[in-house]
Amino acid sequence: MKKLEHIGIAVKDLDAANILFAKLFGRPHYKIEDVEKEGVRTSFFDLGNVKIELVAATRPDSAIAKFIEKRGEGLHHLAFESENIEHEMRDLKSKEFVWLSEKPFPGADNKNVAFIHPKTTNHVWWSFVKKENKLTESDYSGET
Amino acid sequence: MKKLEHIGIAVKDLDAANILFAKLFGRPHYKIEDVEKEGVRTSFFDLGNVKIELVAATRPDSAIAKFIEKRGEGLHHLAFESENIEHEMRDLKSKEFVWLSEKPFPGADNKNVAFIHPKTTNHVWWSFVKKENKLTESDYSGET
Repeated sequence: MKKLEHIGIAVKDLDAANILFAKLFGRPHYKIEDVEKEGVRTSFFDLGNVKIELVAATRPDSAIAKFIEKRGEGLHHLAFESENIEHEMRDLKSKEFVWLSEKPFPGADNKNVAFIHPKTTNHVWWSFVKKENKLTESDYSGET
Repeated sequence: MKKLEHIGIAVKDLDAANILFAKLFGRPHYKIEDVEKEGVRTSFFDLGNVKIELVAATRPDSAIAKFIEKRGEGLHHLAFESENIEHEMRDLKSKEFVWLSEKPFPGADNKNVAFIHPKTTNHVWWSFVKKENKLTESDYSGET
């Protein structure tokens, strides 16, 4: 069965959003990570059954900057965990889903990622991320 | 710790979306439910760690119809599970979150629900739904 790994939320000011969502969730983010190639800075919260990823642009040409310019802040994408993204890509291609890239590429959280084109999923940005990272105590011991 | 209960996705055509998301998830929806008062028809998928709720308007004046008219289909809201929504409302009010209603009200899935005003949560529509599937007298009469 497919398992939801995280929910991505587009924000303008990551520092302010980290404070706000820590109040909402009752716990702080456990790490911050830059994805230089995508022009984003991300922070992660662990809700137990699922993670929340806040995503802010670090460059005006990043996809997140364009998303916020067009639609404003808010819910951005959902991500499934997958042991084998290439297999998911082949399987869902055969069911007429369209992918935004030919292959998975490196994303946040040290995971490879691939996105389905939202035109084939009622405008939900849906990604698959490689299953590998496991949270440990050290994730909470300091920001990266 | 707060636990995510479901993710709401706004769709125009519920029947078509049920077919599409069944292909994506590899399993069909497990129920359909009308919430007459809200002017919506909903369907639910179980992903194991979290549910997906598809929401379609049954009246042109429903909040979902207005959402889709303004922003198009796509991710609509997140919902936390709560044993005591009134407690969450008091607690988060004290942390400067604003609620869209004074009290919880009956929503889909036989659950009471209350929404935080998205202007206080980076434009994410965030709700709390009652953990058990049973409405009690206090859900309607409790002080907030």
